[in-house]
Amino acid sequence: FVLCRSAIYFTSINSIKINLVIKMNVLLYKQCRSLIDPTLPNIANISNCIALLYHEMNNINWLGFYICDDTKQECTLGPFQGKVACTRIPYGKGVVGTCASTSTTQLVFDVHQFPGHIACDCASNSEICIPIKKDDKNLAILDIDSFEYANFSKNDQEQLEKIAQLFIELF
Amino acid sequence: FVLCRSAIYFTSINSIKINLVIKMNVLLYKQCRSLIDPTLPNIANISNCIALLYHEMNNINWLGFYICDDTKQECTLGPFQGKVACTRIPYGKGVVGTCASTSTTQLVFDVHQFPGHIACDCASNSEICIPIKKDDKNLAILDIDSFEYANFSKNDQEQLEKIAQLFIELF
Repeated sequence: FVLCRSAIYFTSINSIKINLVIKMNVLLYKQCRSLIDPTLPNIANISNCIALLYHEMNNINWLGFYICDDTKQECTLGPFQGKVACTRIPYGKGVVGTCASTSTTQLVFDVHQFPGHIACDCASNSEICIPIKKDDKNLAILDIDSFEYANFSKNDQEQLEKIAQLFIELF
Repeated sequence: FVLCRSAIYFTSINSIKINLVIKMNVLLYKQCRSLIDPTLPNIANISNCIALLYHEMNNINWLGFYICDDTKQECTLGPFQGKVACTRIPYGKGVVGTCASTSTTQLVFDVHQFPGHIACDCASNSEICIPIKKDDKNLAILDIDSFEYANFSKNDQEQLEKIAQLFIELF
């Protein structure tokens, strides 16, 4: 009975935690959307959204964009927060390059297990990369690194993919 | 005699400290210069230099650029590291606006004493703003905020003005 009660207790605590994370993610989307002022140059909106995401999300050590060039099959470094980073990533190489070559989100619980992982910041242990696309063309990759393993959940992915949509008109 | 010896000791410690800061500043300039790869898009070079300066300088809470528009007499937010920031600053307003309207470096030991100071991040207590100019036209302002009072010395100013020159071709 005690075991049963504590199981219910933990289930309930976990469910509160999960609900809180979902609510925080929805709030993050709304804050990001409200930061974007279409009368400003794109770089102002991009930089402020990066600041919001970098400082409001948990356990982040690098957050920013790589700019895609489908013709050259290469990503180059865009605006970001975090330490000095790789400047060129060929399509297909590492998490960012795989995101660009497949045009699909890469949710990686442990970057050290990812084939061909490029270690820009050795503090990174998990990563999520989301493509920003327009008319089947890659514009940029939203790249987020965490020093915690498995820092990003499926719900985070869902909300970040929604947030990524906000950047389509900014690149 | 004891007093005299300890005075010599402290003078020598201070002189080592000052020499170390000067050497660090010179190193920062060299690192910044070596980061810039002219074959990369400007945003890659600007973003990596911001990361270097933000993480290598002491006591910094915000570091980045405001883009100048001499015609509109307005600065708009550019790439940066730190918390969400003011997006528009009219020429003549606050430290950034004064830097733009006078085209001269503003070295401010206590921002709260600066007339018309715009508090973007309430953590800031001192600030330095350096204009990036080409042919008498303002291109951008390098804006650095510290949570320490009087964080920037005259030697810092000298080296940062040298570093600022590196950005002329990037805006």
